[in-house]
Amino acid sequence: MPATIETLSEHACFGGMQRFHRHASQAIGLPMRFAVYEPPSPSGAALVFLAGLTCTEETFTIKAGAQRVAAELGLTLLVPDTSPRATGIAGEDAEWDFGSGAGFYLDATQAPWSRHFRMESWIVGEWLPVLVTALGLDAARLAIAGHSMGGHGALTLALRHPGRFRSVSAFAPIAAPRLVPWGHKAFGRYLGDDRATWEAHDASALMATRRCPYPDGILVDQGLADQFLATQLMPGQFEQACAAAGQPLTLRRHAGYDHGYWFIQSFVEDHLRWHAERLAG
Amino acid sequence: MPATIETLSEHACFGGMQRFHRHASQAIGLPMRFAVYEPPSPSGAALVFLAGLTCTEETFTIKAGAQRVAAELGLTLLVPDTSPRATGIAGEDAEWDFGSGAGFYLDATQAPWSRHFRMESWIVGEWLPVLVTALGLDAARLAIAGHSMGGHGALTLALRHPGRFRSVSAFAPIAAPRLVPWGHKAFGRYLGDDRATWEAHDASALMATRRCPYPDGILVDQGLADQFLATQLMPGQFEQACAAAGQPLTLRRHAGYDHGYWFIQSFVEDHLRWHAERLAG
Repeated sequence: MPATIETLSEHACFGGMQRFHRHASQAIGLPMRFAVYEPPSPSGAALVFLAGLTCTEETFTIKAGAQRVAAELGLTLLVPDTSPRATGIAGEDAEWDFGSGAGFYLDATQAPWSRHFRMESWIVGEWLPVLVTALGLDAARLAIAGHSMGGHGALTLALRHPGRFRSVSAFAPIAAPRLVPWGHKAFGRYLGDDRATWEAHDASALMATRRCPYPDGILVDQGLADQFLATQLMPGQFEQACAAAGQPLTLRRHAGYDHGYWFIQSFVEDHLRWHAERLAG
Repeated sequence: MPATIETLSEHACFGGMQRFHRHASQAIGLPMRFAVYEPPSPSGAALVFLAGLTCTEETFTIKAGAQRVAAELGLTLLVPDTSPRATGIAGEDAEWDFGSGAGFYLDATQAPWSRHFRMESWIVGEWLPVLVTALGLDAARLAIAGHSMGGHGALTLALRHPGRFRSVSAFAPIAAPRLVPWGHKAFGRYLGDDRATWEAHDASALMATRRCPYPDGILVDQGLADQFLATQLMPGQFEQACAAAGQPLTLRRHAGYDHGYWFIQSFVEDHLRWHAERLAG
């Protein structure tokens, strides 16, 4: 790691190393935290995983059980925090679904959030290139996945940055944020009241403007006992948009599973193998 | 579940169900919490896992990644909290290595702890029989394992209750608590100053009084980068006692691994398979 990346802790895990880092982000103007799992025999391919509301870089890293499969596949796991922290903006910690822990993987355009809440610029423009160089990764073999708000992030970043990611998947994504309360709140305050700007950060609206952007398919898993399914997630909107765009979509609906990491850990192996197949060669 | 066991939450996981419960313990005189993972096709065999200092019934359940293998093996996972809570004893929450989160899996004999800190009576005499009946488990196919303080608990409960558990394993156990600071503190205040009473709760001292109590072997994993290895754990003491007792011991020393769940998740599959082999038939 270059001197600009601080290692906060490191732990042997499945023959590889789980590390927690911090670096001074220029895009955000503050220190940002992230986690990296390096498998024992890295293939050069990497999966970015974006977590959901209230989460940090620790959540997926601790709860998903992904390192075992990543070790087997030689896949590096890159997990960023979900928002800037300690920005000094009044009220940043006041709401669990907005501000800290709720960056929504976009660049805010509205004051006071626009100064630091620039997650898209950080992740795509700064953090990933820094890590590709620091870890010797293959920039042509990157995948992205995420959960809930992070599922929204994975789908929208993959659609907004063609060619950056070779494959994309999601667990219980906020698939049509322009239509649901979480999205109304976040987009309204980060992006402003002009709803036309929201469509550029809505996976279903974006897909409707594309023509089969991921011909090798997109994988989405959704639990049917998820308490947010009908009101906040709306995977059917994304399913319709994919159908219209000619985009192959594997949308698996799982009876009995809820919104948490009990669900994610049950299917994370499928996602890692899905990405590894598409990142091979 | 009988009406005396309250279900706090339940989550589908690997085709089975992860539940969190509470019941009114007669042995402890207070409500006690615990976690149960029921695999999709229970074999009737169960593994009790005892966690370490500062942990709760959630720690192993969330961090170890054991449900995947338990689901495959048909093994039920039973995970108790690590101490009584909210006992009203002055100072119960003041120290991270004594009192709350540090019950040491024994019955305290010294006031004020002796009134509620009766973890051995609760686990062996009350909680396990209740769960065997409630879940339809086979009382002849129970195994026990644990980590750190819980490794001490697994080894000592297995040695103090012959025939209760068919197999026993541990991760980084406090293998000779009578010789180390954690044990001095806990045993001194729970059991009193008479060190003769300590030997009855010390895995190495207990093993020295037995003759091959587990002929099918005992499995212990220990990380060599564990910061507590030399000062608090002393697996070599247990190794010597096993050798003297004719007890087959598989003590695996893993270079680079520390004391945490990064280590446990890396080897938990081996432990579950070890127990399942011994619980078969």
